[in-house]
Amino acid sequence: MSLTVVGSIAFDAVTTPFGERERMLGGSAVHFSLAASFFTDVRVVGPVGDDFTQTELDVLENRGVVTADIERVSGETFFWKGHYEYDLNTAHTDDTRLNVFGDFEPKLSETSASSDMLFLANIQPDLQRQVRAQCEGAGFVGLDTMNLWIDTAKPSLEKAISEVDCVLINDAEIRQFTGESNLARAATAVMAMGPRAVIAKQGEYGAALFTPSSFFALPGFPLEDVRDPTGAGDSFAGGFLGYLDGEAGEIDQQALRTAMGYGTVLASYNVEEFGTERVGRLTRDEVESRLEALKSMTAFA
Amino acid sequence: MSLTVVGSIAFDAVTTPFGERERMLGGSAVHFSLAASFFTDVRVVGPVGDDFTQTELDVLENRGVVTADIERVSGETFFWKGHYEYDLNTAHTDDTRLNVFGDFEPKLSETSASSDMLFLANIQPDLQRQVRAQCEGAGFVGLDTMNLWIDTAKPSLEKAISEVDCVLINDAEIRQFTGESNLARAATAVMAMGPRAVIAKQGEYGAALFTPSSFFALPGFPLEDVRDPTGAGDSFAGGFLGYLDGEAGEIDQQALRTAMGYGTVLASYNVEEFGTERVGRLTRDEVESRLEALKSMTAFA
Repeated sequence: MSLTVVGSIAFDAVTTPFGERERMLGGSAVHFSLAASFFTDVRVVGPVGDDFTQTELDVLENRGVVTADIERVSGETFFWKGHYEYDLNTAHTDDTRLNVFGDFEPKLSETSASSDMLFLANIQPDLQRQVRAQCEGAGFVGLDTMNLWIDTAKPSLEKAISEVDCVLINDAEIRQFTGESNLARAATAVMAMGPRAVIAKQGEYGAALFTPSSFFALPGFPLEDVRDPTGAGDSFAGGFLGYLDGEAGEIDQQALRTAMGYGTVLASYNVEEFGTERVGRLTRDEVESRLEALKSMTAFA
Repeated sequence: MSLTVVGSIAFDAVTTPFGERERMLGGSAVHFSLAASFFTDVRVVGPVGDDFTQTELDVLENRGVVTADIERVSGETFFWKGHYEYDLNTAHTDDTRLNVFGDFEPKLSETSASSDMLFLANIQPDLQRQVRAQCEGAGFVGLDTMNLWIDTAKPSLEKAISEVDCVLINDAEIRQFTGESNLARAATAVMAMGPRAVIAKQGEYGAALFTPSSFFALPGFPLEDVRDPTGAGDSFAGGFLGYLDGEAGEIDQQALRTAMGYGTVLASYNVEEFGTERVGRLTRDEVESRLEALKSMTAFA
């Protein structure tokens, strides 16, 4: 099986109460693909500038991620600078430079376009639709978005959402998008547009999965040391879709719940250190061991 | 087995986006005891004024709650007026009149003082300690508190907490109380003061249980119609301690987790309608049916 992700490949400058990094590998497609690489073959689509070196590619390639569709463009790589306050719940953006991402027009290779699954990370919804159109055969397509696109491109976003199977979105943003303060109603409203599953990401509270006939939720994995939340949502999505593509077989309720578990585990490792530092050296044994711990922490019947 | 609760017995005026009530039965001890009444014998301790009639007592007595220790005092019953915005997450207080609660000095009857379990609902921590001292023999004591007492009576609150087995507290308030933004660390800090269990109440996200050796969390029961969140935390505590006292037997991890489930179920019924309206006519069958639904919504292994 194979999974293609389109999204940002970035340099991030991040300050949290527990440290800072002036320039490290980041971006939604990077966090997603590293997480998904534990379960399946992953291909990354996105542009990078002249400043993107083999050192950064190595982080992806060491985990077996296929980087052939990373497009080299003259200029600088997408750059994001942000900080977190003491509570770590909200990212405050200090600087965003689109750079080579400004004129990005995704063109997928034949191999990427014929992937079994596709993840449209948080980019402009018209770009998401272009990629979706190139991946007609994908059996399961996930999509993330953010308040910026809800504010500036809502009609496009509605079309993009109508063309995917699963929306993964922050819970504040699904309320904003639907105008429904009640989360269950908001999820129902999104499913009425087409998707057969909605995942509301709830930060440290975990994530909730809605399908037309079911509800499931997992808490965030409890950690005494959270150093950098950047990329947690993308790592969640990577664990979730990576498992569904590579190991689940049929996408039934049991598969979706196990995928939620892997998403939770990958997100939890992501936030333990800065950027890709922890997931970059993670092992499958560590993934399984934390999944077992999560199962025992939620066992109740 | 028997369970005594000390806390407020009140008239509430509540406005939410889904309706309003100008004067209805409320108060932490009322919500707690109605919820606990499904599992064990409950005795309420607290003062009421001349305006408190048999109509209000009937709500409690119809559920078998023992009202003999409700103290009649000349004056008016405690009154709280508040409203909720569209998102229902935060109660905004418009008016608080302590009335007969202002000079309350709890004196427990011999029967109440010899209860097997005790819940110190959210009242001034020196009052909580007075009651705790009168109930020396209680085998398991729970305590709730709020930001007001953290701000104005922290040393007393620390002493009160050191004398109980389980603290149930909003997650924002446990962070404020301990100065720890990380919830796991905040819970550890509270347990270091004495309690063997801490429950962080997380509103619609549910509740998390910490013990020295374990973590467990349940999501809030998903509801499309939430009309009035007032008393949800007290109904949770009532379901939780009621089950532990009346049905659990030994208080081990399994018992605590099942108690968390009953707490979640009672809180969910509480918020479906205003005040005590829904729990007042709830049946045990409905409780069990929602507990089963919750189990199936969280089954993952």
